Amino acid sequence: MRMLVVGSVAFDDIKTPFGEKKNVLGGAASHFSIASAPLIEPKIIAVVGSDFPEKYVKYLGNFGIDTSGIERSSETTFHWSGFYEHDMAVAHTRSTELGAFATFEPKLTEEDKQRQVLFLANIDPVIQYKVLKQMKNVQLVGMDSMNFWIESKKKDLMKVIKQVDILFLNDAEVRMLAGEASLIKAAKMIQKQGPGVVIVKKGEHGVTAITKNEIFVSPSYPTEKVIDPTGAGDSFAGGCMSYLVANTQPGKKITSEVLRRAVAWGSATASFAVEGFSTSGIAKADKKSITRRVEVLKGLSAF
Amino acid sequence: MRMLVVGSVAFDDIKTPFGEKKNVLGGAASHFSIASAPLIEPKIIAVVGSDFPEKYVKYLGNFGIDTSGIERSSETTFHWSGFYEHDMAVAHTRSTELGAFATFEPKLTEEDKQRQVLFLANIDPVIQYKVLKQMKNVQLVGMDSMNFWIESKKKDLMKVIKQVDILFLNDAEVRMLAGEASLIKAAKMIQKQGPGVVIVKKGEHGVTAITKNEIFVSPSYPTEKVIDPTGAGDSFAGGCMSYLVANTQPGKKITSEVLRRAVAWGSATASFAVEGFSTSGIAKADKKSITRRVEVLKGLSAF
Repeated sequence: MRMLVVGSVAFDDIKTPFGEKKNVLGGAASHFSIASAPLIEPKIIAVVGSDFPEKYVKYLGNFGIDTSGIERSSETTFHWSGFYEHDMAVAHTRSTELGAFATFEPKLTEEDKQRQVLFLANIDPVIQYKVLKQMKNVQLVGMDSMNFWIESKKKDLMKVIKQVDILFLNDAEVRMLAGEASLIKAAKMIQKQGPGVVIVKKGEHGVTAITKNEIFVSPSYPTEKVIDPTGAGDSFAGGCMSYLVANTQPGKKITSEVLRRAVAWGSATASFAVEGFSTSGIAKADKKSITRRVEVLKGLSAF
Repeated sequence: MRMLVVGSVAFDDIKTPFGEKKNVLGGAASHFSIASAPLIEPKIIAVVGSDFPEKYVKYLGNFGIDTSGIERSSETTFHWSGFYEHDMAVAHTRSTELGAFATFEPKLTEEDKQRQVLFLANIDPVIQYKVLKQMKNVQLVGMDSMNFWIESKKKDLMKVIKQVDILFLNDAEVRMLAGEASLIKAAKMIQKQGPGVVIVKKGEHGVTAITKNEIFVSPSYPTEKVIDPTGAGDSFAGGCMSYLVANTQPGKKITSEVLRRAVAWGSATASFAVEGFSTSGIAKADKKSITRRVEVLKGLSAF
C-alpha cells in the first residue's frame, strides 16, 4: 500500500539544555516521513515558502521520500520556535508562524487521490478534512492533532476524527478532548466516536493503544540520551504507520499482532528521534537498528 | 521468611471527587500490610495514640497481620488530611499531624530482631535507621520514603538507602533525590549508591524496576474505577515485597524472573487499592483476584 502524508514541512528554532539551533528542518510531515522511510516510500503533501532552501527538499528525497507534492508559495515557510528546560517532557513554544500554511489549499493529483493509505499530520483540521474528502480509494487513515485545535476548532476536528481509523494524540490531549480525567476512560470514549484505534502517546511513559476489544501498552525505549525531543511524537507515528502499511495486505484488516508490533516499532523508532537536534537523530534509524531496539522493548516488559 | 513492617498506622481525612471521609484507617504500614496479607503474615511495628479505636487494630488482625507491635502512646494518633481534584494523580495535603510518631522510639523484641525481612515504610529516616541497626539476621530490606524527607533530611535518608536492598520511590522523588531529569539516568545513579533494586512508581503510568543488570517495566492495571488513590503506592510495595518473600528461599538471591513477577503482582494488588476509600479497596484483593489481574497485565504488553 502506498502512503500519502499531509502536514507541515517547516523551519524550527530549538533550544534545549544541550544547545541551540536556528532555521533547522522541522515540521510534522518531515519527522513522520523520515521515520517511515526505513519501511516505505511515503509522499509528502505540504507547502513551503520562497525562503525554504532546496537542500532540505533534496535531503528528504535522499530517504526515498517523494517530495513532488511539496508546493512552493510566495509566502514564508511555517516557522516554530521553542525551548525545553531541564524537564524535557514539556515543549515551551516561543512563537508559531503559520506562513504559507495559513492559506494552504492542498491539491492532490489523480494518482494521489487513489492512494490507499493517508496520514493527516498535525495541521488545521479544516485542511485535514479537505484532503480526506478528495481520497477515492483510501483504506487506512491515520491522524494526529494537538491541544491548539482541540481548543479552537473542536467541531472541525471531530468531523475528521469520526472518519479516521487510527488517531494519535498525547495523554493530555486525550483527556482534554474527552473532558475526562481517567486516561483509559477518556481514550475509550474517543474510540467509540469513530477511530478503531486510539493511540495515546505518553513520552517517556510509553504508549497505550486502545481498540474496541483490547488495550496494548508499550514502554518507551529506556534511553538516557535525550538531546532534542522535537518530532518524537511524529517519528513515533511515522514508525507505527509504516509498519502497519508494510505488514498489512491491501484490503485486509489489521490484526492485533501486527498492531502491537507496529506500536513497538514506533516506540523504537521514536527513541532515535530524541538523540539529536532536528532530524539528525531519526535520520540514523534504519531497519536493523530499529529491529534491535524492538527486541529490547520486548524483553523490557516480559515476565 | 517472616517480615517486619515499620511505619505509620494512622487516621486519614480524605476528599476525592467521589466523596469525603474523616478519621478513617490510614498510614503506610496499614495499607502495606493489608496488601501483603494474601501471601504472608507481616508484623507491624508502629505507634498509635490513646484516641485510636481498638476496632481498627482488630480489623488489621483479621487479615492475619500481627498487631502486637503496635504501641499505645498517650499522645494523639498520626493524622493526615488531604484531597484530590479532578486529576487524581496528585494528592494535595491539607495537614500532617505526626502526633505520637514525632517521638516514636521503636522497640523490637528479640524475636523481631531475628526476622529475615524488613520493610521500612515511609517515616522519618532517623527512625528507619534505628530499626535497621537493631536487626541481627536480616536478609532482605525494602524501604519507601517521600519528598518531605528528601528535602529535610537527605543525609539521614542516604544513610538508610545505602543499606537497603530494594528502594521504592515515585518518579518525582527519584528525580529529586538524584538531581537529574532523565528518569532512567536518575534511577541508575541511585541504584549505584547501594540498593540492588530501585523501583520507580509512576501511578497510572506503571512501574519501572532498575537493577544493576536490567530494566523491567510493568504497566499499571487499566482500571477506570479510581475512587481514592491514597495508599496505592504502599499497597504496591506490600504486594511486591510479599511476593518476593513468598517466592524466595531464605538465603537465596532474588532471581530476575521472581522480581518481574513481584512487580507485576504489586501492580495488580495496587489496582484494588484505588477502588475504594481508605483500605476498603485493598481489603477486597485476594490471591485469586490478584492472580487474575496479573494475567491481564501479562497480556497487556506482550507482542
